[in-house]
Amino acid sequence: MSVLDVSHISKSFGNQTILNDVNLSFSGNKIYGLLGRNGAGKSTLLNIITNRLLPNGGKVTINGDTVDNNDEALSHLFLMSEVNMYSNGSKLSKIIDDTELLYGSIDRQLVTELANKFELDLNQRFGKLSTGYRSIFKLILALCLPVEYVLLDEPVLGLDASHRELFYSEMLKTYADQPRNFIISTHLIEEIATIISDVIVLDNGHVLLHDTAENVLAQSSVVVGPKADVEQYTQDLNVIGKESIGQLAAFYIYGELNDRPIPDTVKISPVDLQKIFIFLTNYTNGGNGSEK
Amino acid sequence: MSVLDVSHISKSFGNQTILNDVNLSFSGNKIYGLLGRNGAGKSTLLNIITNRLLPNGGKVTINGDTVDNNDEALSHLFLMSEVNMYSNGSKLSKIIDDTELLYGSIDRQLVTELANKFELDLNQRFGKLSTGYRSIFKLILALCLPVEYVLLDEPVLGLDASHRELFYSEMLKTYADQPRNFIISTHLIEEIATIISDVIVLDNGHVLLHDTAENVLAQSSVVVGPKADVEQYTQDLNVIGKESIGQLAAFYIYGELNDRPIPDTVKISPVDLQKIFIFLTNYTNGGNGSEK
Repeated sequence: MSVLDVSHISKSFGNQTILNDVNLSFSGNKIYGLLGRNGAGKSTLLNIITNRLLPNGGKVTINGDTVDNNDEALSHLFLMSEVNMYSNGSKLSKIIDDTELLYGSIDRQLVTELANKFELDLNQRFGKLSTGYRSIFKLILALCLPVEYVLLDEPVLGLDASHRELFYSEMLKTYADQPRNFIISTHLIEEIATIISDVIVLDNGHVLLHDTAENVLAQSSVVVGPKADVEQYTQDLNVIGKESIGQLAAFYIYGELNDRPIPDTVKISPVDLQKIFIFLTNYTNGGNGSEK
Repeated sequence: MSVLDVSHISKSFGNQTILNDVNLSFSGNKIYGLLGRNGAGKSTLLNIITNRLLPNGGKVTINGDTVDNNDEALSHLFLMSEVNMYSNGSKLSKIIDDTELLYGSIDRQLVTELANKFELDLNQRFGKLSTGYRSIFKLILALCLPVEYVLLDEPVLGLDASHRELFYSEMLKTYADQPRNFIISTHLIEEIATIISDVIVLDNGHVLLHDTAENVLAQSSVVVGPKADVEQYTQDLNVIGKESIGQLAAFYIYGELNDRPIPDTVKISPVDLQKIFIFLTNYTNGGNGSEK
């Protein structure tokens, strides 16, 4: 089984530390959600994994082989990002040919099928495409290449709601046909919540959380009721966020609940992934940013 | 009262018609949502309004004065878009100074306050900012200039969930302090559904819909029940979308319901704006794209 290892990666720009001793391992043909606030270092990490940026320390390997200047190792990876790698004057069909040369093959039947579904004319020049259609073209490449690791940095940037739905469903189809690893970095957390198997949260340059989506959701709950009762019941729990309106309070918990009986006045419910994420990473505002 | 008029605007690129006789009027210090599929012509329209692109026909006026090469008229408009107008080497503080010269003034106290809230260091150079922080910087400019029309093209592109919440709430604060017109083009429809007063849907180069958000929501409903009953009840209504699972069907209606009694087996509920939008503009897939 193929393994992508990120080992003790650090990266600074000037005196700003972006990544600080990041360790991660990707394998088992899973769909990973790579989450983090603006500036958390997600894009930097994806660029280091694909050798577009060099780290200040640490290394990235595929099955033990470094990706650093190693075309063989890099041929297992494709990064789709908002950076435009293609010249504005190039026809899309020409970019597909060039990419095929680079990766050895491309699923031409799927390229045509997806271009039809998204109504993308492959005879156009890249520079003529709108933001949304640039994303669509790059997504089609990402889905049709024979790589073991598909890295998507903000894949649906500029895509309308119908195209976003279409992309997620086509991605899952290609995943079912040919299981491989996806690493998806996005700010539209609820849209990917149902398709990811693993959650990684980068925060302040380090890995704050790496667990299955199932475990993360299972450990999250919200306790709602009269403020005094909620405060008392949650006092020895890991409270990650608080909301209140008048005398009514909602406290968000990450971790085990305790064995004490739940008071009749309070109700405990599950929490969605985006909400958990906001509370876990909103420390800088001391929780105020999320008080409603 | 200031009025921005878009009159008989047409625009083609090569043999492709992007806008076809578009007529719109903006006034009354409202918050407009400009919606449309990828490629519907939203960005082209915003660029024509702000004289960054010339139309093939028609004209744009503010209080009767053309915007074409008219600095006075253009000083009432600011367009924030994903196109980067600023040089990578410029410090943010320098760009603020230059923009102030162009617009006569800028609310410096608010610039500082917003930069603090978003944790943006104004001594950085523009080229060093991430996608999300470029958006944030341009949003701060948009909110702090003394213009009557603030045009936002995909304002939250690349912003994380907390920053998106913060932006919407700060935008509403500045709107309350100083009412003016906002025209917001976005694909994240549900996020703006509660803050817009008017909905404009561009489709295939023309205005498909222009109404208050209240009216649009009031005219939209979903009829759910056994398929045969739903089909019978909705047969003379304007059905814009259909979903079905087994024998259960959900038909989406845009327009009046009829006076006939509602069968006990069917339930009629409101629909959210994003769903209405998807059905109204999804004609190309014959509705299949939205069948679940």
